[in-house]
Amino acid sequence: MTSDGLTEAVVASFDGCGDERLKAVMGALVRHLHAFAREVELTETEYFAAIDFLTRTGQGCTDTRQEFVLLADVLGLSMLTVGLAERKPVGATESTVLGPFFVEGSPEIAPGGDLANGAPGQPCLVIGQVLDTEGQPVAGAVVETWQADEDGYYDVQKETAEPQNRGHLTTGADGGYSFWSVKPVAYPIPTDGPVGELLRATGRASMRPAHIHFMVTAPGYARLTTHVFAAGDEHLDNDAVFGVKPSLIADFVNHPPGTPAPDGTTPTRSYSTVHYNLILAPA
Amino acid sequence: MTSDGLTEAVVASFDGCGDERLKAVMGALVRHLHAFAREVELTETEYFAAIDFLTRTGQGCTDTRQEFVLLADVLGLSMLTVGLAERKPVGATESTVLGPFFVEGSPEIAPGGDLANGAPGQPCLVIGQVLDTEGQPVAGAVVETWQADEDGYYDVQKETAEPQNRGHLTTGADGGYSFWSVKPVAYPIPTDGPVGELLRATGRASMRPAHIHFMVTAPGYARLTTHVFAAGDEHLDNDAVFGVKPSLIADFVNHPPGTPAPDGTTPTRSYSTVHYNLILAPA
Ligand SMILES: [Fe+2]
Ligand SMILES: [Fe+2]
Repeated sequence: MTSDGLTEAVVASFDGCGDERLKAVMGALVRHLHAFAREVELTETEYFAAIDFLTRTGQGCTDTRQEFVLLADVLGLSMLTVGLAERKPVGATESTVLGPFFVEGSPEIAPGGDLANGAPGQPCLVIGQVLDTEGQPVAGAVVETWQADEDGYYDVQKETAEPQNRGHLTTGADGGYSFWSVKPVAYPIPTDGPVGELLRATGRASMRPAHIHFMVTAPGYARLTTHVFAAGDEHLDNDAVFGVKPSLIADFVNHPPGTPAPDGTTPTRSYSTVHYNLILAPA
Repeated sequence: MTSDGLTEAVVASFDGCGDERLKAVMGALVRHLHAFAREVELTETEYFAAIDFLTRTGQGCTDTRQEFVLLADVLGLSMLTVGLAERKPVGATESTVLGPFFVEGSPEIAPGGDLANGAPGQPCLVIGQVLDTEGQPVAGAVVETWQADEDGYYDVQKETAEPQNRGHLTTGADGGYSFWSVKPVAYPIPTDGPVGELLRATGRASMRPAHIHFMVTAPGYARLTTHVFAAGDEHLDNDAVFGVKPSLIADFVNHPPGTPAPDGTTPTRSYSTVHYNLILAPA
């Protein structure tokens, strides 16, 4: 009874699989899983601890919380999958993780509208164009955006009655988009579940640098899922989910009360602006 | 932005872990997980299918059903962990998987008692001794046993009011144990959950060869978790969870009605007997 013989038997059990891709994926999964267990000489105590951890991770998932995505995030698997999928021409905006807080069916926002919807924080005007890699505007692109508030919480974590800091809008003929939200801040990923336990047990940090999420879709273009990160954030080099890419960092500029904003308004309190163009690759 | 750099960054994120063993296990897990994803070029669609599968596997676990153990079983990880823990002297009974149907707090059975407790099936007398590797009896050993009925179901699957085919007894001075249950039959592992989906999608069989589970504990000895398999079962070479070892196969002998049994009774219907000694390694 050799361990190698066992692994071969498990891989061979998939020989009858009619789906060649699934067969290859499962065979590779078994080989790497067994190689891991053999390398560390996984103990039965650790095996049962892993079973318990994975069970609680599954049971911690709800309609608005995806603890397994969070686990894949902190293990770098989400970012690796993003990287493997990235086959982009030079100039296109890079991708990063979706994260666990995207929600289908966000409200539609009028161009230049306010999607903070009462969320606490300094007002922030986010402005830019959706372009193709030739620099031409992409009209009719749908820009989904979501972010945390000044306290570091997404609306789904606060269970607000209405969406906050979440919405989508459609670009006009010039590819332009703009909206008001609040200035994003660094926040900890949720640490009240099994993934939080793992971070504490391993002495890992739980912070993400301040960012705004974007998902952009337009006919004829590849869907873009990304963030814009705030330049100067102290956590840019230590993102709990490994999502930072230098090209995704932008300046959030602070303006005193009474400064005219690029959208023609003159806010009576201090506010920030960030300009970021979202450049789509062809489908 | 290279994939290798990402893996190094994730492994390095565990550098501050004060528990050296946990640091090593998590580092190895990340390396093997990333190597798997890179080898198969895991797609985002597959990533999300995996997240969904694992989420449902966790949510399919209850007090009496452990779908993650079942997943580890069909991937051979359970049996590999058993093999890695097996550091036994020659002559000791080999181990196999615990399986998902062990329940704490089984009823105590008097020596020679009936633990079938009404479960359907041909009566079966299970008889043997608990011995050490010198062949000396181990008195006071606790023998836990559990098995499926003639229909292939464990009591917890049928949600019977009382335990059936499940119990524990204590060996006497001669190390002997015996009890009546029913003759075990081959059965499918539960296929109404995510693991069943996986088996169907990959064209894998779901049967386990007929067996009786044992867990034996005694002061000064290593705990033994094993099965006794029925010789001649057609699924011995194709166990869905890879648990068969040749040394664990025994003859279940059929007897016509009116044949005196080894325990002094003379059953009026046909029955089976199986003799199997359980040999404990020192702790
Ligand atoms: Fe986020
Ligand atoms: Fe079983």
